[in-house]
Amino acid sequence: MKIYKIPEATVMRLSIYSRYLYQLAGDGVETISSGEIARGVGVSSAQVRKDLAYFGEFGTRGVGYNVDDLYGHVMKILGLDKMWNVIIIGAGKLGSALALYKGFVKRGFNISAILDADQGKIGTELEKVVVEPMDVLAERVKEHNVNIGIITVPTISAQEVTDKLVAAGVKAILNFSPRVLNVPSDVILRNVDLSVHLEVLSFKLDYQG
Amino acid sequence: MKIYKIPEATVMRLSIYSRYLYQLAGDGVETISSGEIARGVGVSSAQVRKDLAYFGEFGTRGVGYNVDDLYGHVMKILGLDKMWNVIIIGAGKLGSALALYKGFVKRGFNISAILDADQGKIGTELEKVVVEPMDVLAERVKEHNVNIGIITVPTISAQEVTDKLVAAGVKAILNFSPRVLNVPSDVILRNVDLSVHLEVLSFKLDYQG
Repeated sequence: MKIYKIPEATVMRLSIYSRYLYQLAGDGVETISSGEIARGVGVSSAQVRKDLAYFGEFGTRGVGYNVDDLYGHVMKILGLDKMWNVIIIGAGKLGSALALYKGFVKRGFNISAILDADQGKIGTELEKVVVEPMDVLAERVKEHNVNIGIITVPTISAQEVTDKLVAAGVKAILNFSPRVLNVPSDVILRNVDLSVHLEVLSFKLDYQG
Repeated sequence: MKIYKIPEATVMRLSIYSRYLYQLAGDGVETISSGEIARGVGVSSAQVRKDLAYFGEFGTRGVGYNVDDLYGHVMKILGLDKMWNVIIIGAGKLGSALALYKGFVKRGFNISAILDADQGKIGTELEKVVVEPMDVLAERVKEHNVNIGIITVPTISAQEVTDKLVAAGVKAILNFSPRVLNVPSDVILRNVDLSVHLEVLSFKLDYQG
């Protein structure tokens, strides 16, 4: 198996399958076919089978998949059979919204710390996390064994913050700033542009509407 | 051309190509090959050619693509050669962050109105938009010719808000709440779960790290 060649779109679909399987398990459903998963999440059943086939054989021909088992497998594939510690840099509206976002902890992402350079924001409580100054970055990363950094600072500070996260040993960065960031090759960088979601809608409105 | 069969992943990549082409045009680059686009955005050049081929012939063999022309074509494909009017329902941290998000207006998405059921939030100014009560929903949708609704309300109110947007004639909805929403078949619904972005990182940390 060449795990490292899994397309990112497959990973994102696995994430969607896992949510659907969780819901089914909650409803007491025991087995499900690829066709039913496909209908439930809105992709083709061939796509479901292809996505799952990257990771080996799960189902039983003619019976389908055991919901609990498949859910466990998919969560393990996604690395969600453990907790990940996350630090947020930037306690503006977006950073605060992310710190309070209930979806993260449900999926195993624990917000360990949130930092900001603005004295006015330091000390603000966001549920159980308090906004702290930038100079505790390295200390918090080490103390909480932080795996992932989320950047929600203004464009002008984004590279400086990235360099600090990298220097502190953070190996994965989720960047919400519009700035193109440079990271060493052993650091995983993912840029999030929230307008992409709107663009899928504008595309569909234009062509299908 | 079967435009309606374009995979969503292709639309999302077109969105990424357009940002790169915009940057190149700003740097004065006049022509570019599919290989250069591929390296610039981190996909294969075969993928770039395949994505663009859905929409006809753009490049010149041996010369590549004219950057300005291709940018214009891709923006038109994405429906971004016009402005789209957006209403946000829910002025909590996430709704406010989205109302202030600079990336939207740059790509042609204009936040026309933001509504909330909480009296305490009504009247708050988010740049040029003021939070208004829920009962002006239908009026604002009509007045601003709103095409897209963004839902950032708590789970419990999400379906009710969706029904109101649909009744007001909104044809595309971006849902940030974790609730599975029901919409008529002529309404385009897209669910955004921000943890998906973290899950791509946890997957990669687990398998490549």
